[in-house]
Amino acid sequence: MSSSVASKASKKDQVDAIDQRIGALAKTTPKVFGAYGQLVQSVMKTGALDDKTKELMAVAISVSVRCEDCILYHTRAAIKLGVSEAEYVESLGVAIELGGGPSVVYGARALETFKALSED
Amino acid sequence: MSSSVASKASKKDQVDAIDQRIGALAKTTPKVFGAYGQLVQSVMKTGALDDKTKELMAVAISVSVRCEDCILYHTRAAIKLGVSEAEYVESLGVAIELGGGPSVVYGARALETFKALSED
Amino acid sequence: MSSSVASKASKKDQVDAIDQRIGALAKTTPKVFGAYGQLVQSVMKTGALDDKTKELMAVAISVSVRCEDCILYHTRAAIKLGVSEAEYVESLGVAIELGGGPSVVYGARALETFKALSED
Amino acid sequence: MSSSVASKASKKDQVDAIDQRIGALAKTTPKVFGAYGQLVQSVMKTGALDDKTKELMAVAISVSVRCEDCILYHTRAAIKLGVSEAEYVESLGVAIELGGGPSVVYGARALETFKALSED
Amino acid sequence: MSSSVASKASKKDQVDAIDQRIGALAKTTPKVFGAYGQLVQSVMKTGALDDKTKELMAVAISVSVRCEDCILYHTRAAIKLGVSEAEYVESLGVAIELGGGPSVVYGARALETFKALSED
Amino acid sequence: MSSSVASKASKKDQVDAIDQRIGALAKTTPKVFGAYGQLVQSVMKTGALDDKTKELMAVAISVSVRCEDCILYHTRAAIKLGVSEAEYVESLGVAIELGGGPSVVYGARALETFKALSED
Repeated sequence: MSSSVASKASKKDQVDAIDQRIGALAKTTPKVFGAYGQLVQSVMKTGALDDKTKELMAVAISVSVRCEDCILYHTRAAIKLGVSEAEYVESLGVAIELGGGPSVVYGARALETFKALSED
Repeated sequence: MSSSVASKASKKDQVDAIDQRIGALAKTTPKVFGAYGQLVQSVMKTGALDDKTKELMAVAISVSVRCEDCILYHTRAAIKLGVSEAEYVESLGVAIELGGGPSVVYGARALETFKALSED
Repeated sequence: MSSSVASKASKKDQVDAIDQRIGALAKTTPKVFGAYGQLVQSVMKTGALDDKTKELMAVAISVSVRCEDCILYHTRAAIKLGVSEAEYVESLGVAIELGGGPSVVYGARALETFKALSED
Repeated sequence: MSSSVASKASKKDQVDAIDQRIGALAKTTPKVFGAYGQLVQSVMKTGALDDKTKELMAVAISVSVRCEDCILYHTRAAIKLGVSEAEYVESLGVAIELGGGPSVVYGARALETFKALSED
Repeated sequence: MSSSVASKASKKDQVDAIDQRIGALAKTTPKVFGAYGQLVQSVMKTGALDDKTKELMAVAISVSVRCEDCILYHTRAAIKLGVSEAEYVESLGVAIELGGGPSVVYGARALETFKALSED
Repeated sequence: MSSSVASKASKKDQVDAIDQRIGALAKTTPKVFGAYGQLVQSVMKTGALDDKTKELMAVAISVSVRCEDCILYHTRAAIKLGVSEAEYVESLGVAIELGGGPSVVYGARALETFKALSED
């Protein structure tokens, strides 16, 4: 099995595990997650900015605050919306301008995630 | 071996590894850790607030600052003090109000930790 | 005018300005704030933990993440719920244990805020 | 003098003060700032994403990391590129989804800044 | 009165206010501050690294975590230990490498503080 | 195979993986990385402070902002410059003073990294 296939499986497993963990937490506190879910929907739907741009912003913030599960989550969402690698990498650039070294290393993890989850 | 048993073993191993790493650092710099240990004791003992409430605060802060080892450490302490799952989850709620998405994914990791370390 | 009266007026003005700024933002994006408001309500109402404890957690997180407007906002809320100075200060202690120097200086600002807003 | 005029003057003064402070630091360490300036230029110029989108990302990150001078700086830049209030507010929404309460209060400061600096 | 004199007075007042606020908090919770004070002393005294180097590290961290009161506090301490402007500015450079834009604007505030508090 | 040998291999693998990930990102956006590389070089070369001191500052900041890849990266660089364990541990002390519990657990990971990567 090539290293790229292994990496893809692992990233896919990681994002599935995030879904399961969030699902388990949501079940214990449904009202909080109901409200949070509505917040996410209101924020992310296309308006003055399109949903793709918003997901790229979410990726850039995730890198800036060094949140790996957030990177996985929002990268998957960005891919579903058809974000290109060039758009994705330019968003990482903004995170690097505003975050320096930590955004370089988390940005590098992000690109690895983008490539692994894009391979379908 | 069920996935829940595996997860428990892994979380238990992770928290043991934290103890060992902190022990190794403390040995190299005993005065700093002596003072830090006294700080922890003064802060955490029951006073106007009970120790259980304080450990839940420590968990909520750990989630808010996205520190996984802190989550493991303070979740174990909270369990030892008899925190219930309902109290624990409501503390995660406060972290979510004040932290949004990153607190959702770290809060979800926290609940997984709480469940795994509670199974004894 | 004594310095304590001046300080009280200034903190009161600051928290009023926060309300006005949030109000202005909420008006531009009512659905997002509707959902966020529901999230806050679901999180903060008494459940397994009482509302006072939750506001103290919110203060401790605010100090930990170095958010001065958050400190003002949640300190006012904690005072309304009848939090004592001793309870408040012990919450700052937890933030100091988990945040070191930055939590010392923001905690010191928090106590100043608590005293100024408590003087009614 | 109306409060809105006062606010505009004050925000304009604040952003001028940022320029002066950065200028003073840049003069002491020109090679570092030469390289940083090139980084900013490479990141921010239109490519797969346009410069306006990138400045909005920079605003959203600035709010997420609670950096008021960054908010002032990138809001001025976004206005110069012709960002609309609706686009700006939707970017704040993404920061709120990923930052909760602290992004609400810093987002509210950001909108105040956008309005004050847009009034020319 | 020249702007530089005004600035010096203001920074001096700000650092005095920090002392007063920390003093007020310390009085309410003397054991916590006793332990924290011992931690600071153990950390900061000359050992394998000299105290001046450690204060410069404290400044670099303060800039990196965007804590203005910390910058004031540790800049005053660094000046007392005889740090030169060149050493100070190079420490800010490290913070910029590891923090990007937010470290630029906080670093610029730090240099202003260094200059104002050095003028005695 | 002893646990210390395993740990060394794993840390070495982790830092190699960082290099590969950064390399992959740099290839997609060479101008941004060209500028960032020049920034790093300008910052890190010996001037008023020597390069060893600067790498220790980078380690202390990495711990303070809870960036594990940064810790690995700058710890390797510090070891190459001949940093002693005593100097390294004292730098962690500064991070603990300014970061509390999260710096304790990340500092403990840092020391483990220092030991593992020093074993050649």
